[in-house]
Amino acid sequence: MIIVMAPGATDEDIAQVVQRLEDQGYGHHVSRGVERTIIGAIGAAESEKQALAEQLSRFPQVERVVPILRPYKLVSREHNPETTPVAIGDFCFGRKKIGVIAGPCAVESLDQLCQTAHLVKEAGAVALRGGAFKPRTSPYAFQGLREEGLLCLAKAREQTGLPVVTEVTDLRDVELVAKYADCLQVGARNMHNYDLLREVGRTQKPVLLKRGLAATVEEWLQAAEYVASEGNLQVILCERGIRTFETATRFTFDLSGAAFAKQETHLPVIADPSHATGLHKLVDPVSLGSIASGLDGLEIEVHPHPDRALSDGPQSLTPRRFAALMEQLRAVAEAVGREL
Amino acid sequence: MIIVMAPGATDEDIAQVVQRLEDQGYGHHVSRGVERTIIGAIGAAESEKQALAEQLSRFPQVERVVPILRPYKLVSREHNPETTPVAIGDFCFGRKKIGVIAGPCAVESLDQLCQTAHLVKEAGAVALRGGAFKPRTSPYAFQGLREEGLLCLAKAREQTGLPVVTEVTDLRDVELVAKYADCLQVGARNMHNYDLLREVGRTQKPVLLKRGLAATVEEWLQAAEYVASEGNLQVILCERGIRTFETATRFTFDLSGAAFAKQETHLPVIADPSHATGLHKLVDPVSLGSIASGLDGLEIEVHPHPDRALSDGPQSLTPRRFAALMEQLRAVAEAVGREL
Amino acid sequence: MIIVMAPGATDEDIAQVVQRLEDQGYGHHVSRGVERTIIGAIGAAESEKQALAEQLSRFPQVERVVPILRPYKLVSREHNPETTPVAIGDFCFGRKKIGVIAGPCAVESLDQLCQTAHLVKEAGAVALRGGAFKPRTSPYAFQGLREEGLLCLAKAREQTGLPVVTEVTDLRDVELVAKYADCLQVGARNMHNYDLLREVGRTQKPVLLKRGLAATVEEWLQAAEYVASEGNLQVILCERGIRTFETATRFTFDLSGAAFAKQETHLPVIADPSHATGLHKLVDPVSLGSIASGLDGLEIEVHPHPDRALSDGPQSLTPRRFAALMEQLRAVAEAVGREL
Amino acid sequence: MIIVMAPGATDEDIAQVVQRLEDQGYGHHVSRGVERTIIGAIGAAESEKQALAEQLSRFPQVERVVPILRPYKLVSREHNPETTPVAIGDFCFGRKKIGVIAGPCAVESLDQLCQTAHLVKEAGAVALRGGAFKPRTSPYAFQGLREEGLLCLAKAREQTGLPVVTEVTDLRDVELVAKYADCLQVGARNMHNYDLLREVGRTQKPVLLKRGLAATVEEWLQAAEYVASEGNLQVILCERGIRTFETATRFTFDLSGAAFAKQETHLPVIADPSHATGLHKLVDPVSLGSIASGLDGLEIEVHPHPDRALSDGPQSLTPRRFAALMEQLRAVAEAVGREL
Repeated sequence: MIIVMAPGATDEDIAQVVQRLEDQGYGHHVSRGVERTIIGAIGAAESEKQALAEQLSRFPQVERVVPILRPYKLVSREHNPETTPVAIGDFCFGRKKIGVIAGPCAVESLDQLCQTAHLVKEAGAVALRGGAFKPRTSPYAFQGLREEGLLCLAKAREQTGLPVVTEVTDLRDVELVAKYADCLQVGARNMHNYDLLREVGRTQKPVLLKRGLAATVEEWLQAAEYVASEGNLQVILCERGIRTFETATRFTFDLSGAAFAKQETHLPVIADPSHATGLHKLVDPVSLGSIASGLDGLEIEVHPHPDRALSDGPQSLTPRRFAALMEQLRAVAEAVGREL
Repeated sequence: MIIVMAPGATDEDIAQVVQRLEDQGYGHHVSRGVERTIIGAIGAAESEKQALAEQLSRFPQVERVVPILRPYKLVSREHNPETTPVAIGDFCFGRKKIGVIAGPCAVESLDQLCQTAHLVKEAGAVALRGGAFKPRTSPYAFQGLREEGLLCLAKAREQTGLPVVTEVTDLRDVELVAKYADCLQVGARNMHNYDLLREVGRTQKPVLLKRGLAATVEEWLQAAEYVASEGNLQVILCERGIRTFETATRFTFDLSGAAFAKQETHLPVIADPSHATGLHKLVDPVSLGSIASGLDGLEIEVHPHPDRALSDGPQSLTPRRFAALMEQLRAVAEAVGREL
Repeated sequence: MIIVMAPGATDEDIAQVVQRLEDQGYGHHVSRGVERTIIGAIGAAESEKQALAEQLSRFPQVERVVPILRPYKLVSREHNPETTPVAIGDFCFGRKKIGVIAGPCAVESLDQLCQTAHLVKEAGAVALRGGAFKPRTSPYAFQGLREEGLLCLAKAREQTGLPVVTEVTDLRDVELVAKYADCLQVGARNMHNYDLLREVGRTQKPVLLKRGLAATVEEWLQAAEYVASEGNLQVILCERGIRTFETATRFTFDLSGAAFAKQETHLPVIADPSHATGLHKLVDPVSLGSIASGLDGLEIEVHPHPDRALSDGPQSLTPRRFAALMEQLRAVAEAVGREL
Repeated sequence: MIIVMAPGATDEDIAQVVQRLEDQGYGHHVSRGVERTIIGAIGAAESEKQALAEQLSRFPQVERVVPILRPYKLVSREHNPETTPVAIGDFCFGRKKIGVIAGPCAVESLDQLCQTAHLVKEAGAVALRGGAFKPRTSPYAFQGLREEGLLCLAKAREQTGLPVVTEVTDLRDVELVAKYADCLQVGARNMHNYDLLREVGRTQKPVLLKRGLAATVEEWLQAAEYVASEGNLQVILCERGIRTFETATRFTFDLSGAAFAKQETHLPVIADPSHATGLHKLVDPVSLGSIASGLDGLEIEVHPHPDRALSDGPQSLTPRRFAALMEQLRAVAEAVGREL
């Protein structure tokens, strides 16, 4: 890290900073410029780095402290230059083949789910999504079928062979959900729920980690680091829109952030165009754009009857439109040297 | 709610919407304008309102659906025009007297905590804050003393008589934390953690609910509604800064949002200038501004040695500066017809 | 528009609103719901609509006023369902063929410009960009060659046949710039400069209108409406990133917003991946994603020596990398039924 | 500035950076850490600093370049620690006495303006605001009375003795507006209009510089630097709300940003609670909060009949409410050692 001293810093002020660095076992370089003196600190134990930077910022005449290293390790490309393939069922995300996860926002009934599962499989989806536990903004909205929903998912897997991706929102349900699911989804609203991240990491199951709606890419990767620090590197990152001033779309799909993440981490990165936009008419352009830009897959909401859906009807595709989109995706994937 | 039909809507399209409204037991008014037909829907069961609005948005030639009512009930001033006083220990937030909660970001040791507790009490604080469970962005940063921290808080209460406010981050710890704390804090990163909100609601203890860093005031009040829907109306709302493009401050303190919340809800609203700004130099102006604007109190980070703090050193006041601020707050509180 | 009355509204309050609507020649429907009375107003002169809505919001017991119609006319697809082709030189944006505008951020010298112009033409660019007047955040940074820069652009056109796109920032320069340029660019920082928009509209030259860095799509289309209201519908919209909390990229490229704009307006929509991301490594993914999602073209910064550029070096491609990108773009364009 | 080399940087990569620094006349320190080598560059001509930083970022194996100095000089407290008083008419902003500028959003008629002027003067306002040139989002909305509006302002000044603050939006009108106005206002939508800033700077009249709706405090101060670089340090900064995801208020009043600006610059800083919130009910709390936090004044919209205002009715106070607010402001100003 670099400590920038204020213009009025005296030799004594500088000596105090240097002393603290020495006390903590850091090397240092003092560089006196025309308008500022800066001190470079060398060597940093991961566990104390942040606290030390904060503490130094309170030393007399310290103007600011600039961190130099990335605040994540295991998930960075610097640590591992090759993309890590992550398997959900038989399909491996992060290789040449693009993977599409599809299904309804919420599991509403066995019929609804199985009907959708058969149709998305036919269209080429590699996994089935469906929420059994639904975190809803209003306490009065439909909250999911819970364990019954998990049972439906298991039956749909039995009938179609599609592996199942479903969200876990409550720490106490991790074991239960892990019993049924092939991949545990951590939703945007829980990306900062570090206790949940650790717990999910411990299952050693693949994790689909949505980006928090106000999380920087750096914080998203730090959340992945929580899972990784439990010894679980089977993490797929999913960009699902961030909160901005734009209200025409439900969230703003951050293509540049997702592309940046893809370059920063060796983990696969996919996109969720349904939640990002909240509008079924925008699912096609955002899906096609995501694949062309190099992402590794998609998670798309498909519902047989969006005008009867218990949640997220506005952004769900019908199975027919989903199948048509898959054809377009195939062409775009090939155009960028991938496959579907 | 109001359903706006697209310009090309036919009588049949309109009839389909009307039919669905009738099927669900809603009254309706059809109003044909020059460029749009709009349909007003009357009567709405709280539990199905959102789903119906979403479903109607997928009907043919429906352009958009505009909700008319607020998405929260129990916490709104429309439901209860008088401010609800919420007590932490002997002190009641939401009355004429302003309440200041103070203490270190994290409990680091019994000594550090008790020393701080005595000093903030002397300066006029009405409750002691201190984190035993710390949600940190990096998995490698200090995560809190956990149960040992709770024990320190209990001892500090014993020694000073100050009631204790502390955060709970893990659903499984709610009972444990409730055993020690006088008020349970739900942090910004957990405001959308609905399972935690329900669990905390069920304790029937006072709850300090921080605003999520990307939560609208509406969503913040919906989070409070989760607690309230468990029969617990002892909720204090706390504005702690939102995430914006501005990087000079750690977050952006949303004074206008907090003032709006104060008018929308009958629950007390306070401010946390320390987390909002991340800079000790800005704690004074933001604290004074909050009280002048009509908020009911403050939560302020105080640490005896910010340059040795294990977390949030940059924004912590020393006890001496805290005492000086309290004097200024007293004058401002009186200027707006309150007391400290 | 719809006027929502507060719960306590009396018959007299409602009558006052109705009276004002009648005075202004509006029709109206009063609809009394269980919790709110709403009043639909029918008929609205474009010029007074906004003021009336604002005024009604101040009537006693009016809770809020909800506009129903879009705040733009001439540029909306509702007004004109077919995409309007806009020609720069011989190339028509908005048809099957994708158009790429390329060149340096700033014109630095005739040599630099002509060298770049030849190379981008060879790679398939249809127009040359280059700034002669540079609006810079710092008053001490390079501000452009001004008229000398315009002369360079004219010479580069002569040598290569490429039409020229350049920014105008000062109202007083509109005539001068129009003399040299084939298309006038209005930059993001001037999107709200309504006097400039009118003036540029009056030239009857094609206009490249960048989205303001904090402009909603609605405001962007209203800015286009300013140009259109001067009788000039030759407007190409350009998404160039919006300001959000994300700091990894210079701005956030709003793919969902651009796709939404494409559906809302009949004007061509293109993307500027260079300014949006500020990072040369992200120009490829964002360019490919934009074309796959259905946008009509790109504006890309190319500089022969980014490590010597006087501005925007970090985001400029070398001519060699630009040529490689064009090959990839060709494949993606074809995959989505377009051409390059 | 500091140049951070990537992990794979060779001695030759480092030598190239050093060579460029030497070529440009900079001193340098190379510091080899465990994971990164960093190079400190010493000495920086203001005019080339930014370009050099950008260029170095494109050198092989340069990871990033971190600027150390503030990007503004003349307006910073580092340059001048004492607050610079700025006079509008007889009143000096930036001293002990708080100044309130009040009046209608737009000049609608001589009567409306003079009536308002008399009432706000009586209540204690020190200057009259009123827009003659109105930049409006819609081309169809009321655009102001233009020169006739300026004449009304001059007459209102004659009648009341209040100096006049009015906005200039068009470069070509600077001279005209300067003839009538005592202080030139640059609106939020023109804060990045650098040509206008220079022109306004050259008049040597006091300038009221609104913060751009997506401008960081740093960019706001850079805009002030544009005016200052023309030799005009009579600049009053005005926080008027920034654009965020919150939609309950029209903008988000950034109290922490304004307080930060006050510490960073020696220029007076005031607040505009009317535009910041867009809601008359929030003008009181935001005004009181601003003064308590240490700002030097306010600009408030007052209209005799908000329900007939041609613009900004929703946020305008009636003269009676304005007078009541002034009483409260007086008490708060005194509580923080100021006067009204």
